[in-house]
Amino acid sequence: MLSDINSPQDLKKLNVSQLNTLAEEIREFLIENLSVTGGHLAPNLGVVELTLALHYIFESPKDKLIWDVGHQAYVHKMLTGRMDRFHTLRQYKGLCGYPKCSESEHDVWETGHSSTSLSAAMGMAIARDLKRERSKVVAIIGDGALTGGMAFEAMNHMGHEKRDVTVILNDNEMSIAPNVGALHNYLGKLRTNDGYKRVKEEVESLLKKVPAVGGTMAKLAERLKDGLKYLMVSGILFEELGFTYLGPVDGHDLPTLMEALRQAAYTKGPVLVHVITKKGKGYTPAEADSDVFHGVGTYKIESGEVLKTEGPPSYTSIFARTLEKLAETDPRIVAITAAMPGGTGLNRFASKYPERFFDVGIAEQHATTMAAGIATQGLKPVFAVYSTFLQRGYDQLVHDVSRQNLNVLFAIDRAGLVGADGETHQGVFDIAYMRSLPNMTIMMPKDENELQHMMYTALQHNDGPIAVRYPRGSGEGVDLDTEYKQLPIGKAEILRSGSHVAILAFGNMVPTAQKAADALAAEGITPMVVNARFAKPLDEELLFTLARDGYTVITLEEGAVQGGFGSAVLECYAQAGYHDMVVELMGIPDYYVEHGSVKEQRAEVGLTPENVAQKVRSLWPARRQRA
Amino acid sequence: MLSDINSPQDLKKLNVSQLNTLAEEIREFLIENLSVTGGHLAPNLGVVELTLALHYIFESPKDKLIWDVGHQAYVHKMLTGRMDRFHTLRQYKGLCGYPKCSESEHDVWETGHSSTSLSAAMGMAIARDLKRERSKVVAIIGDGALTGGMAFEAMNHMGHEKRDVTVILNDNEMSIAPNVGALHNYLGKLRTNDGYKRVKEEVESLLKKVPAVGGTMAKLAERLKDGLKYLMVSGILFEELGFTYLGPVDGHDLPTLMEALRQAAYTKGPVLVHVITKKGKGYTPAEADSDVFHGVGTYKIESGEVLKTEGPPSYTSIFARTLEKLAETDPRIVAITAAMPGGTGLNRFASKYPERFFDVGIAEQHATTMAAGIATQGLKPVFAVYSTFLQRGYDQLVHDVSRQNLNVLFAIDRAGLVGADGETHQGVFDIAYMRSLPNMTIMMPKDENELQHMMYTALQHNDGPIAVRYPRGSGEGVDLDTEYKQLPIGKAEILRSGSHVAILAFGNMVPTAQKAADALAAEGITPMVVNARFAKPLDEELLFTLARDGYTVITLEEGAVQGGFGSAVLECYAQAGYHDMVVELMGIPDYYVEHGSVKEQRAEVGLTPENVAQKVRSLWPARRQRA
Repeated sequence: MLSDINSPQDLKKLNVSQLNTLAEEIREFLIENLSVTGGHLAPNLGVVELTLALHYIFESPKDKLIWDVGHQAYVHKMLTGRMDRFHTLRQYKGLCGYPKCSESEHDVWETGHSSTSLSAAMGMAIARDLKRERSKVVAIIGDGALTGGMAFEAMNHMGHEKRDVTVILNDNEMSIAPNVGALHNYLGKLRTNDGYKRVKEEVESLLKKVPAVGGTMAKLAERLKDGLKYLMVSGILFEELGFTYLGPVDGHDLPTLMEALRQAAYTKGPVLVHVITKKGKGYTPAEADSDVFHGVGTYKIESGEVLKTEGPPSYTSIFARTLEKLAETDPRIVAITAAMPGGTGLNRFASKYPERFFDVGIAEQHATTMAAGIATQGLKPVFAVYSTFLQRGYDQLVHDVSRQNLNVLFAIDRAGLVGADGETHQGVFDIAYMRSLPNMTIMMPKDENELQHMMYTALQHNDGPIAVRYPRGSGEGVDLDTEYKQLPIGKAEILRSGSHVAILAFGNMVPTAQKAADALAAEGITPMVVNARFAKPLDEELLFTLARDGYTVITLEEGAVQGGFGSAVLECYAQAGYHDMVVELMGIPDYYVEHGSVKEQRAEVGLTPENVAQKVRSLWPARRQRA
Repeated sequence: MLSDINSPQDLKKLNVSQLNTLAEEIREFLIENLSVTGGHLAPNLGVVELTLALHYIFESPKDKLIWDVGHQAYVHKMLTGRMDRFHTLRQYKGLCGYPKCSESEHDVWETGHSSTSLSAAMGMAIARDLKRERSKVVAIIGDGALTGGMAFEAMNHMGHEKRDVTVILNDNEMSIAPNVGALHNYLGKLRTNDGYKRVKEEVESLLKKVPAVGGTMAKLAERLKDGLKYLMVSGILFEELGFTYLGPVDGHDLPTLMEALRQAAYTKGPVLVHVITKKGKGYTPAEADSDVFHGVGTYKIESGEVLKTEGPPSYTSIFARTLEKLAETDPRIVAITAAMPGGTGLNRFASKYPERFFDVGIAEQHATTMAAGIATQGLKPVFAVYSTFLQRGYDQLVHDVSRQNLNVLFAIDRAGLVGADGETHQGVFDIAYMRSLPNMTIMMPKDENELQHMMYTALQHNDGPIAVRYPRGSGEGVDLDTEYKQLPIGKAEILRSGSHVAILAFGNMVPTAQKAADALAAEGITPMVVNARFAKPLDEELLFTLARDGYTVITLEEGAVQGGFGSAVLECYAQAGYHDMVVELMGIPDYYVEHGSVKEQRAEVGLTPENVAQKVRSLWPARRQRA
């Protein structure tokens, strides 16, 4: 049946029983295909019926379906003519793992970060109304994403404006990890309150038995009716914000779902449909461990065994291990995550030090400023966060942390190119957005062993905010020192002396520089290789020595060239009056790099050992010999 | 009596009647002092009794008082030993208009932006509990600030953690302008619901009259009791988020206030005290127009007449006027503000085009992404926002606008140095944080006439996001063209030809460059003066010509040097292989510039005509003559 579905129109010919069969086929397709490509399996298994019902009731692309976060849009992609490209999912030049407008007219909004869908929906509803068009705008948002502050900002505005917008709350009781927060507890209460409507009439009849009286009692009766509203309308929190609340609805029961969506489509003003789904639904291993199967690599279908690629421990795990060890002797250390206890590696810290661990939900703004608040009291907050998500806490980083010069440690994971998640998740702006801020110190280690020392150094640092950025994936496989060293702030490390050309590599570009130097050695070309360690402050002494000694400098970073580390080197030379320095900048060029492997992405942007070697050759020997 | 108050301890000897007299004296003091210095009069008149009650009930600095936004901390400053410095308020080296830790141990958290206090309070409560200390943490937040998403993120976490934190909701029904949003409507309902407690007993007795029955009816009665909770506990929205709700309380009645605060201090877990205050209370002109008296310059005490400084129209007003005019013929234009209809000048647009105007509350994240949503539908959203507040929408600018390359116009007001608001409000990072993003175009006009043309140019631009940044305050007093011109994207304007040295001035630094050149002419020194117009894309053709013609270049910008416009010029030369260019960077150095007049701030950071002239002299004649 699946092969007959080329567009949402094809769905509308099917009856419920056929749709249920289709749902099963979709699940089989996803489980099979993703076992080979990897991808966001559990979230998509959870929305099979919901996606079918949405495309059955609404008319995409005239009606706009906006997928919050976007990793749960696989079924949507299957139903809109992209089934044949699933073997290329998340691969270089293949199908994107998130909605992508260039792929289909049914993708009307691109995303990857959470909590943006309601604002987008509001914008589209405003445009629709101004253009006097008739269409439905539907945002599908998870209960985790709803904890993001911008979702609340949007609901506050939606409830005020009263335009027709449908919000589907896809409530699976999870972000990636189990959800936290008062809102989560509230949703839990709603989930168990399915009897409201049934008792409504009975309560009303009960009320009629209360003797009719005048004066105060009449007033009381009036108030009692008000109270009853809360009995009958269970989603009071949403109702108070101006929404019509429908639900809760079983997200795996097609007739109920369709009925609720139909009702929503005919309701005036903003509507919230509360849909209960199960992450990983229909695939036992994914149901049992939806965290592991949230975003998964390859796995064996029968057993659900996730196939691990052999390799050195990841930077993430070394970060986590180091923090745990340091926390043993330093009671000031507090660890914070924004809904990423697994992704940041803090899971084990959480069980070891539950008192000193805080998962604040998808709330990077709050996390950043809460860390600042903790730091005012002399403790050592560590906010572990992906580079791309720290963008959400930028103003808090500026206004609360950097301006107050507080000792907050930002452990910035997934810095640089991130591979299969692509454009929306690239961690390429953090050097630029942090280094323009006063008081910041910014480091990146050359390998996982140095990451340990940087963590230790950062926690000894009592002179303001400090960031350690490190990349996604495996370390370099180097030995790990058992004693931690305090690295001198703002000092680089010369790894290989040389002549004429100095490669200043920042963090994870050091191995690339080394490989280039290895290759060049055979040609008799011997550049100096420097592990820069710091993007701020720079090792000015070394930079000036290089200038005086007539070196040509190549800066190498896995970050945006615009305003990045190399740019800082240029500023340093300009401000110190070294106006005849030759500095060549290598980094991420001025566009968004799409999904693929990190290796493919580096090749595309020109950050391979061969690119670096070629750059050195072009500069060899020194363009000008100095005294 | 006022002169006897040197610390909060002195308050505690007074009785209520004496405190009321003190309140009157405080109001007189504020009205008198601010009539000379200017400042945030209305917000502070609104919190006189509240501040007295807070310092009476709590023990600052052991107990932490955290003022959200911070412009309402004047009374707090008066009560904590700073009365004698009020004549220096918001002046260079004088008393800061916001909490400032270096001024007093009673200032425990610095701020200026809204909605940070709850996160800071949470951080301090965590630190207190980990350190096993006993103290109260109290955040005072306005109803406007509560619409900011990060406040919701914090409440969600507070309600989950259940630590002891007191939140004072200072509800004056206003941000700076009247509040918007569903939350505002909800608070409105609460304000009128003061009879709850009184009727509680009566309702309970009424219930007893309902015949006792078993089975379904027992269940019903149980549910009815649940319903009653909503009768008795009026702040259900806060209760559902895990807070104990107390109030609403009259914020100008000291005994009631003290009782509520005392109750809050003894309540376990997070408490929200809903305090109703009146902005401008006790000063008729400020009560009547609290928007004007929110942040006010000098005024006549008797009449309340605000003394206007004569001068050319402000950049803000020219922006607004231009947008209104363009909107007459272009129905695609939609204007957006985040609670700043007055500050951004959009008030009149709002009355002229109510359908196309949106005030979303203090919600820059939502505003930015909503603009993106509108842009996807072919309309032309214009988000007018202060440079410092756009920092709140940074991730939305990256992920939703720049990455999707959508036609959103950012009208960035208060760009550069902002004067009396100081550190927290400086608009000095936007060039750096925007120019590292792909697809961005960034402009700044040399005067208010060019601002018109830039607005026109930006609205013709259909090639992605575009920012027009302009400074706070008066324009240059130039004539205004009545016809708008489309400026070529990425092209600079040579204002004055010259030799040897070229001053590339960005935006509002052009007049400074011109004055420097005027002064130098008498000395026979004749630098070229260029109006750069664009920080991205740069006028590479001009830059390369300057290089070929042997010019030394000075870049001049009212923005952070780190990663700014000058840095872009350096990158451009480095990437094009012009390695022997002499480029001197002039801009804001790497620290936060405190309050004072813009003139004083420019003098401090070295951005005066004399500084520029001196720099040109030091470079004159050209250091190297080229062929």
